Amino acid sequence: MEDSKEKIILNVGGVRYETYSSTLRTFPGTKLCSLTEPHAPSIYDYNPTTKEFFFDRSAEIFSYVLNYYRTKHLHCPMDTCRSVLEEELAFWEINETQLASCCWLKLNNKEVQPEEFHIWDENDQADDQCLIVQTERMDFSWRTRWQPKIWSIFEKPFSSFSAKCLAVVSLLFIIGIVIIFCEETKAQFEFFTANFTFVGHSEVAHNYHEPYYHQAAYLLHLELFCVLWFTFEFSVRFCVCPDKKKFFQNPLNMVDFLSLFPVYIELFVDGQIQKMPSLGLWLGFIRIVYLLKLLKISKLIETPLILRVLSYTLKSILREICILLMILAFETLFFGSLFFYGELLCSNPSYTGELHFTDIFVCFWWALITLTTVGYGDIIPLTSVGQVTAALAAVFGMLTIIIPIPIFLVKFKNYYAIAVFKQKLKRCKNY
Amino acid sequence: MEDSKEKIILNVGGVRYETYSSTLRTFPGTKLCSLTEPHAPSIYDYNPTTKEFFFDRSAEIFSYVLNYYRTKHLHCPMDTCRSVLEEELAFWEINETQLASCCWLKLNNKEVQPEEFHIWDENDQADDQCLIVQTERMDFSWRTRWQPKIWSIFEKPFSSFSAKCLAVVSLLFIIGIVIIFCEETKAQFEFFTANFTFVGHSEVAHNYHEPYYHQAAYLLHLELFCVLWFTFEFSVRFCVCPDKKKFFQNPLNMVDFLSLFPVYIELFVDGQIQKMPSLGLWLGFIRIVYLLKLLKISKLIETPLILRVLSYTLKSILREICILLMILAFETLFFGSLFFYGELLCSNPSYTGELHFTDIFVCFWWALITLTTVGYGDIIPLTSVGQVTAALAAVFGMLTIIIPIPIFLVKFKNYYAIAVFKQKLKRCKNY
Amino acid sequence: MEDSKEKIILNVGGVRYETYSSTLRTFPGTKLCSLTEPHAPSIYDYNPTTKEFFFDRSAEIFSYVLNYYRTKHLHCPMDTCRSVLEEELAFWEINETQLASCCWLKLNNKEVQPEEFHIWDENDQADDQCLIVQTERMDFSWRTRWQPKIWSIFEKPFSSFSAKCLAVVSLLFIIGIVIIFCEETKAQFEFFTANFTFVGHSEVAHNYHEPYYHQAAYLLHLELFCVLWFTFEFSVRFCVCPDKKKFFQNPLNMVDFLSLFPVYIELFVDGQIQKMPSLGLWLGFIRIVYLLKLLKISKLIETPLILRVLSYTLKSILREICILLMILAFETLFFGSLFFYGELLCSNPSYTGELHFTDIFVCFWWALITLTTVGYGDIIPLTSVGQVTAALAAVFGMLTIIIPIPIFLVKFKNYYAIAVFKQKLKRCKNY
Amino acid sequence: MEDSKEKIILNVGGVRYETYSSTLRTFPGTKLCSLTEPHAPSIYDYNPTTKEFFFDRSAEIFSYVLNYYRTKHLHCPMDTCRSVLEEELAFWEINETQLASCCWLKLNNKEVQPEEFHIWDENDQADDQCLIVQTERMDFSWRTRWQPKIWSIFEKPFSSFSAKCLAVVSLLFIIGIVIIFCEETKAQFEFFTANFTFVGHSEVAHNYHEPYYHQAAYLLHLELFCVLWFTFEFSVRFCVCPDKKKFFQNPLNMVDFLSLFPVYIELFVDGQIQKMPSLGLWLGFIRIVYLLKLLKISKLIETPLILRVLSYTLKSILREICILLMILAFETLFFGSLFFYGELLCSNPSYTGELHFTDIFVCFWWALITLTTVGYGDIIPLTSVGQVTAALAAVFGMLTIIIPIPIFLVKFKNYYAIAVFKQKLKRCKNY
Ligand SMILES: [K+]
Ligand SMILES: [K+]
Repeated sequence: MEDSKEKIILNVGGVRYETYSSTLRTFPGTKLCSLTEPHAPSIYDYNPTTKEFFFDRSAEIFSYVLNYYRTKHLHCPMDTCRSVLEEELAFWEINETQLASCCWLKLNNKEVQPEEFHIWDENDQADDQCLIVQTERMDFSWRTRWQPKIWSIFEKPFSSFSAKCLAVVSLLFIIGIVIIFCEETKAQFEFFTANFTFVGHSEVAHNYHEPYYHQAAYLLHLELFCVLWFTFEFSVRFCVCPDKKKFFQNPLNMVDFLSLFPVYIELFVDGQIQKMPSLGLWLGFIRIVYLLKLLKISKLIETPLILRVLSYTLKSILREICILLMILAFETLFFGSLFFYGELLCSNPSYTGELHFTDIFVCFWWALITLTTVGYGDIIPLTSVGQVTAALAAVFGMLTIIIPIPIFLVKFKNYYAIAVFKQKLKRCKNY
Repeated sequence: MEDSKEKIILNVGGVRYETYSSTLRTFPGTKLCSLTEPHAPSIYDYNPTTKEFFFDRSAEIFSYVLNYYRTKHLHCPMDTCRSVLEEELAFWEINETQLASCCWLKLNNKEVQPEEFHIWDENDQADDQCLIVQTERMDFSWRTRWQPKIWSIFEKPFSSFSAKCLAVVSLLFIIGIVIIFCEETKAQFEFFTANFTFVGHSEVAHNYHEPYYHQAAYLLHLELFCVLWFTFEFSVRFCVCPDKKKFFQNPLNMVDFLSLFPVYIELFVDGQIQKMPSLGLWLGFIRIVYLLKLLKISKLIETPLILRVLSYTLKSILREICILLMILAFETLFFGSLFFYGELLCSNPSYTGELHFTDIFVCFWWALITLTTVGYGDIIPLTSVGQVTAALAAVFGMLTIIIPIPIFLVKFKNYYAIAVFKQKLKRCKNY
Repeated sequence: MEDSKEKIILNVGGVRYETYSSTLRTFPGTKLCSLTEPHAPSIYDYNPTTKEFFFDRSAEIFSYVLNYYRTKHLHCPMDTCRSVLEEELAFWEINETQLASCCWLKLNNKEVQPEEFHIWDENDQADDQCLIVQTERMDFSWRTRWQPKIWSIFEKPFSSFSAKCLAVVSLLFIIGIVIIFCEETKAQFEFFTANFTFVGHSEVAHNYHEPYYHQAAYLLHLELFCVLWFTFEFSVRFCVCPDKKKFFQNPLNMVDFLSLFPVYIELFVDGQIQKMPSLGLWLGFIRIVYLLKLLKISKLIETPLILRVLSYTLKSILREICILLMILAFETLFFGSLFFYGELLCSNPSYTGELHFTDIFVCFWWALITLTTVGYGDIIPLTSVGQVTAALAAVFGMLTIIIPIPIFLVKFKNYYAIAVFKQKLKRCKNY
Repeated sequence: MEDSKEKIILNVGGVRYETYSSTLRTFPGTKLCSLTEPHAPSIYDYNPTTKEFFFDRSAEIFSYVLNYYRTKHLHCPMDTCRSVLEEELAFWEINETQLASCCWLKLNNKEVQPEEFHIWDENDQADDQCLIVQTERMDFSWRTRWQPKIWSIFEKPFSSFSAKCLAVVSLLFIIGIVIIFCEETKAQFEFFTANFTFVGHSEVAHNYHEPYYHQAAYLLHLELFCVLWFTFEFSVRFCVCPDKKKFFQNPLNMVDFLSLFPVYIELFVDGQIQKMPSLGLWLGFIRIVYLLKLLKISKLIETPLILRVLSYTLKSILREICILLMILAFETLFFGSLFFYGELLCSNPSYTGELHFTDIFVCFWWALITLTTVGYGDIIPLTSVGQVTAALAAVFGMLTIIIPIPIFLVKFKNYYAIAVFKQKLKRCKNY
């Protein structure tokens, strides 16, 4: 009894703590327990005058450590950083896993972010570093001197005045080719009307079996002019790019590359169109690649931080979106089938002539259009069972639209907090 | 006066607190009040030299306890865990209900989660434990040795190579039967056209009163082949499953069970179809159960944490969703009736021939399609009153779609925080 | 110099603070400043031995008060409750408005809720208290003894077995009258077809100028039976209700009251229908009030907390919703007018015969249906200008739908936190 | 060894801290390091009796500073305000950039708001201040005395009774002119039918080549009356406005100005309409400006705080909305082109006569209507490829609608917290 009431005074960083020896003996094998052993004063910094053991550690967390001995529950202050806590617990020889679960939550809520810090800014300046590395190889050829300059003129529209001019010229060419594309569709439509609508009247159709652009040759010339510019631009950028492999992995560069083909193919297969009239339409179809060049505008405008976070979030939840699309696909199949049999089984004989579909695939189409609440109204349920199916599909579609919102929000908020923080940190360090 | 000014020194875990005796007498019957009684030094750990009462407790919460005597308001630090607070208050003999309401809020905001901890991971490894229990019964028969292996091959696609192969084979069969289902609908549609559209011309129709698959017998053979595989798979899984009752409670197993029937029924009632042509369609209808087998794909892909939380959240707000569907149903009835009478009362006699409906149920259908903003356009208001009703229905529908979002979000965030925490805890404890 | 370096020791609740006299003189007129005056030791509790001024106050907030003298900025700890801070600042004679704005935010973020505590649970037990008050008037008449019992049987479906039975009976009657209402619409439709479609052929129409229910008299009898029950129920509830004024302010009771009329009116004006055929339809129209009785179901199911919070939130943002509806109305007017003139100005003469509208109100209708993304497709832009207007309307509608979401969410989260807290508090106090 | 074990006692604001000299020597060049130098006692406030260095600073942050010397990691308490921390670190001569990143996050999360404080309330009372400044110029002319009164009568509807009356009169005139506008469209439609549908039959059309309002002259008179009132109101407000430039920058005033023109132009070009019939329609078209006057209602109702925050948020994310509209435009172009070629390439010859479009712009229109899920159903895919395109467009449109929600929410919450805080601050300071 007398022994257990023996007091021990601990001076932790200047703050005096008193406790009973018996309390410290609660967890044998820890540093504090060893203070109760007889030879402790010779090992630790013991002041015989004040009878204090001195430890040059943080007093704040020590109060929680001492409470652990008193109550057998290890808690931690709310504002403790994980690294600080780990260091202190290691000093006092206490296992981190003893931490109560309520405090784990506190620590972890703050820890979500630092883990994801490295992912976020990885691809920020990868290209530049590649270029710098190359420069450091010290081969002072013509190439080494000019490559970075040309690269920055073509790739960084905000870096210099000439880069800005080039960006504007490039933009005008892109807009130009999109306008040309739209104009060409008119010729295509005429070509289609002439060749495909009167099939069977071969003598009439034959007259038109020629490339559509014979009616609008100037369009092909303009298109060729634009594509020549793109060919030049792409060649230069390909030559000066620091990392060929990375260059082709960039989808925007792939689009640039693919958009060179349509015109050259057209010139190449010129003679074949008379034999295969549908080839003309296919040549028009592959020109859709020109539209993808519009995505390059994203490089010409300074995207606000919030949108970069948005696109990063979208990338990170790609898998979840895919699974949700699978759910949508399943609902499409299920409601489509229900609709098909519902209409067949309940249709009044007198209605049958009006059935809007002849195929289950048309029912799938209907189901998707109802689930997405587009509701064209081309296919409409005629029976009560079909109407109930449609009603269910509409309600389920409505709920399915709502599902991805919280996933998106939770992730977005997380990433946005990190991004705002990083931006401030960068700004702080610059000044 | 002199008496009330008498000071008491309290040494709580090394921290010295001074206060007046009169302050401690504020709440009679508590431990601190009893310190002011004459015999207190003999009961408590009193140091006559320093005139201190020593208590081996946390100093942090004691400062709040002492303030309770000074100000009559009991507060607590923000980062206190509930269990810590309860223990300290019990030691100082203070009733927990005295806590100020602002601090209750602090405590409870953190307490939401631990309560729901147990719900979340209940069904994680229930099946396995059942199997382990069985193994521990020590009956080393053939069954006991092989059952867990077969079970894991059939149920855990990621456990071994053979399990993966089996999963792929199973998946192919599922996709196969879905394709067969779609193909069969074509034969069904032909059967329907032949039998149901010319009812009354019995001599023509009679020719077709035979099972539809006579036109596509190979489909039935393929289907039978798939179903035989499913029968085999289901039998094996049923035999080796550790808990038969639980096996049938799993909806996916029920679907597996039900999907065996359609073909066997078809073979069984073969002769009846000539007498009852609609039976052929019903046999097609019950095949929709094949589509539900697609849900088994969810077992073949590793669902990300966020989606498991999502499905758990959806389950937990099922009741709220039901009530919201009831609200939607009420709105449907209300706007449908308004539309019905609005159109009847205001319709111009010359319009009447064009009224899109002949029934109030058609109006209910219209109301639901408008509320969900699908808007097929098959039924359209012709009068101003009807148009106003439609406008109101559209706006109310829009608002009704928004209502479930916050419920969903609040719950989802809560569960997601717990789930992320649990995952980290598990990962921490593994390493 | 010597004077300013003079130290003052403050013992606040046992914690020693040291500072220079000059520091305390920073804010004249406060309690701490007066400590530096010569006669301070005689006023305050001064210990000449230790040269300490003793104050029996919280040490924690005092450290912030002292820092205020040192740095001229008054901050406060994050976890301080407002009431605690106010009390301490009042004691130290410091004006609360000196608090730095960053700390104001901390305090206020937590203070949002307690202010709204009282609104939330106001109408919880108002009715009962009224009854209790009446009971306490001590008039032991027949009325006083039975009133509370009958009241709880009719108003609290979960209070006793007989109350449950009555609730079920009442529910069946409500469902019954809704079914009768739907059935009556069929008779109404026939009555309408007969009377209104051949207007002009008076001799044919005349035959049908009789109340529609002559074709379905049994429906009127059933309806009358239901209404007699409702009359009985309403009379009893009205008689035993503790507060007549409150009883009529409750919209559900108003609906109950109004739903008694249609049948009695029908019987009263029986003879008039032959003279005014549209009266028959109006009598059908006012029966829509029966549907509103379905809202009483909400009293029969125990609404989960989250839904009660939802409805409270909806009530609290009613004003915001109204303003948003006004924005929608403005958009409707604006896009409708644009569409009207767009179509008129750009329409090709050859198209004009196909113009879908003859009125600007039809354009407003179109605009609203497009803004809410319902899109029936009955009115479609035929010119490019009209199509651009429609595209703008669709995009603006899409954005307008999104606008109320954050308002709703922010408010909902706030109220939900309070509601969860209150529920826990109640549960805590019960046990 | 002996040297490094030498202890230093620091008395920071009364709290004693002990540490080893060697610990303080960790970061040379800081104030604490200089304490270990021999001449330190003469520089700093050193008490030879207690061997303490006294610093009159906050003890709380000092414990973190001392831990920085012990562990080499600088952290800070969670509830520290940035300004406090900066001051303390400056005193102890420690560079703020040493702060650990986890604590940076803590500081910054709270710091988001004060930065944006100034933006928020800038334009609150700019107008008034301008007026006050003018008043202070001390020119006591008739103008100076009356200008503020008239201004507040015309601009601040809640300031006085006469202001309220004027607001009501003004509102009635606005509603009046909107009704007149709607009435005029009827005359416009007649004018259009007469003049534009029988083009070619010049003798018939000629009769109607007169201003439309000749059929409804009273409308023009009413309109003129309203416009005269608006002219008067605008003139007065323009005369008494304190800052002419700001007056015209306000879009509501611009609308007021523009809405004066239509009638005067009509009177002016009266004779020209017979020569150019489309002029009549254009005169109707520019009257849409009257509708914009409805926006002035927003000045007549007291907008709740939450809506002002909403509109501020919308303004602040204008750029993000623009970029999202560009994404929508890109999707429109892309899916429109896919649809065009999909339908052309796969269309069955027998279908061709039914192709819903003759132009790629019609396809773009279709794509936008599908993306916004309006889905009129005027243009419908007839081929499988077209249906798949439509399905993709519907799903992408659905996802695009969801994208802006989190941006909106995150910003809104931020601004709302600030706004609520500011309102409370203002209310506190008023009382
Ligand atoms: K729609
Ligand atoms: K639609």
